[in-house]
Amino acid sequence: MIRPNMHYKELKDSYLFYNIAQKTKTYIEEHPGTKLLKMGIGDVSLPLCDAVIQALHEAVEEQASPKSFHGYMPECGAAFLRERIAKYYESRGVSVSPEEVFVSSGASDELGDILDLFACSSSALVVEPAYPAYVDANVMAGRKIVHLDSGEENGFLPEPNEEVKADLLYICSPNNPTGAVFSRKQLQAWVDFANKHGAVILFDAAYEAFIEDETLPHSIFELDGARTCAIEICSLSKTAGFTGTRLGYTIVPKELERNGMCLHEMWVRNRTTKTNGVSYIIQKGGAAVFTEEGQKQIHENIQVYKNNAKVLMQALDKLEVWYCGGKNAPYIWMKCPNGMGSWEFFDYLLHEIQVVGTPGEGFGACGEGYFRFSTFGSLEDTKEAAERLVKLLSK
Amino acid sequence: MIRPNMHYKELKDSYLFYNIAQKTKTYIEEHPGTKLLKMGIGDVSLPLCDAVIQALHEAVEEQASPKSFHGYMPECGAAFLRERIAKYYESRGVSVSPEEVFVSSGASDELGDILDLFACSSSALVVEPAYPAYVDANVMAGRKIVHLDSGEENGFLPEPNEEVKADLLYICSPNNPTGAVFSRKQLQAWVDFANKHGAVILFDAAYEAFIEDETLPHSIFELDGARTCAIEICSLSKTAGFTGTRLGYTIVPKELERNGMCLHEMWVRNRTTKTNGVSYIIQKGGAAVFTEEGQKQIHENIQVYKNNAKVLMQALDKLEVWYCGGKNAPYIWMKCPNGMGSWEFFDYLLHEIQVVGTPGEGFGACGEGYFRFSTFGSLEDTKEAAERLVKLLSK
Repeated sequence: MIRPNMHYKELKDSYLFYNIAQKTKTYIEEHPGTKLLKMGIGDVSLPLCDAVIQALHEAVEEQASPKSFHGYMPECGAAFLRERIAKYYESRGVSVSPEEVFVSSGASDELGDILDLFACSSSALVVEPAYPAYVDANVMAGRKIVHLDSGEENGFLPEPNEEVKADLLYICSPNNPTGAVFSRKQLQAWVDFANKHGAVILFDAAYEAFIEDETLPHSIFELDGARTCAIEICSLSKTAGFTGTRLGYTIVPKELERNGMCLHEMWVRNRTTKTNGVSYIIQKGGAAVFTEEGQKQIHENIQVYKNNAKVLMQALDKLEVWYCGGKNAPYIWMKCPNGMGSWEFFDYLLHEIQVVGTPGEGFGACGEGYFRFSTFGSLEDTKEAAERLVKLLSK
Repeated sequence: MIRPNMHYKELKDSYLFYNIAQKTKTYIEEHPGTKLLKMGIGDVSLPLCDAVIQALHEAVEEQASPKSFHGYMPECGAAFLRERIAKYYESRGVSVSPEEVFVSSGASDELGDILDLFACSSSALVVEPAYPAYVDANVMAGRKIVHLDSGEENGFLPEPNEEVKADLLYICSPNNPTGAVFSRKQLQAWVDFANKHGAVILFDAAYEAFIEDETLPHSIFELDGARTCAIEICSLSKTAGFTGTRLGYTIVPKELERNGMCLHEMWVRNRTTKTNGVSYIIQKGGAAVFTEEGQKQIHENIQVYKNNAKVLMQALDKLEVWYCGGKNAPYIWMKCPNGMGSWEFFDYLLHEIQVVGTPGEGFGACGEGYFRFSTFGSLEDTKEAAERLVKLLSK
């Protein structure tokens, strides 16, 4: 009898978005015709930019003719895209070779797949509150999870702690759900900690394009010593509206070695065994993001979301509510007023002002008492939500 | 210090396609201007059919407008595609529910990912000659590999063997590299064997669309009892020319349970944790394959490859060389003449008639002495290769 992967029994059911959907559905059934202002899920609302659309159409057309048709793609990514991404790093003063860039179907796919590089006996440190899949993907592999809570006292940006022992360190900056961003000094402390202990940082940089403060690092490879301890996982989902189009990239530096094994070479071996690469069409669309025109256009879209964030931040400032994020990230993480719990505040907003957000508790125990707003909706809805919020909480 | 996945040290370097490329390159350098007839790699040459191209353009256009824009896709696949695939099965008399259809980026990706469902202590039976990734993906997870050789004596279609103990059984039919196809009776024996021993069959059906003999099974779910022991992994790569466009699907029946755990539920949990689904654009292109128009068009393309197979089979018949495949598969597996070894025959064809094929030894030890021809090239090249082959080997 084959033995299934019994670690799946250790997974806790994640009811976060399911519960949000159920509560929202019930409310609408009881209040037909009500318009809900949805600021819960982190999905973009603006379409793909013109440069990407044009490149996608051209690539589809290439697939229609025998002379320009593309069959199997290189498993680690098409050279034209790996080179553009390496140049994108170069333009920000970070030296990365095209061979160190691996094209992926997106950050969520890669965050799961990359774990194959590490022994199941290794442990994973998750800085919480966090994206729930960090924990679940490691539970599935039977890895020990070490939770490191963060909170208001450190601005949800905890320092490494010598008492915390772990092998794989998840760091997401700008952070989902808190929107907090590590400074160079803070991130350097994590890099130094990882090098000292032979740990590996999985740096989730999915929101780097939202950073506007020029002193903050976009890439972990801006820090000294990161090439010997970090893997950076990036996504075009929020940067360029690719949530449903799917494309990302991962940087695995050639210097990254553990126990005499080169993780870069291992990842090449993994990809050439376990995938036949990412769709030619989508890679062509992705390459358009890294052109001058593409960069201009995606930043116009990002500016729309950043305006939404401003509207919400102004409302929270007016209310004198504690929050972080918003300035350099598409998420705003606010403290629930009057000592309310996350779900209590969720119900309160839904019933009183028909605004849907995400209860902080869904991102780990230390998220209890906090609430996440996503800024990916329309300006109109965001303005309306901000006005209702001010009116409700000023009472 | 983090421990890397030390099983990567147990991987044998796969030099098959690398060696082919090197030998070919050297030959061309030494004989500039020579035209090689490439029948080695199993990559398609015909472009995507019109129905797919049109659907892809339409989907790209939807992504250009806020009203029709699609963000995150359901992780297990878009309903419109899962329903079409379930109907495709229904049209062939096999009952599969849309929830049992999981959309993937392709069979090679899925063959690696699906292993996450099974304990690393389980063993994997690989019927050889075989696609090399079956072995490598399991070595990476530390699974014991049980090799089951096949040969001319059983037409490269071995029966289950009570002396062979294994938990996970890889069966590829129509087979890569041999082109051999299990009959209903033969496949039923494997299903019965798996149910008897509590094993799970990973049925690789990537070439099902090439079957023309109406008595042969396209899906393992045509056999009694398969729903309690099999997962079927399918691909549009060869069926519809998606090698570089990337799309596949996997059937995990709800009845498939081991040790009290439902593998269907586990796979839903895996997908919702480790992926955000497949690109909307590509799924729309894939859905067009399952329309009446799409089916007609892809079968016109398949017919082109089948004509190539006929041309080659006629040549081999004339030469009275032993071979299998070709009739119900896009591969022809021939015995090297005069007791030649695989690589010896490779060099002979390259140097004497400038034809490139794939040495059978690359698919496992029992492939030594055999040679694979792919039929995905042009009719013109295939005819030329067949003529040269007849001329050379009739000497």
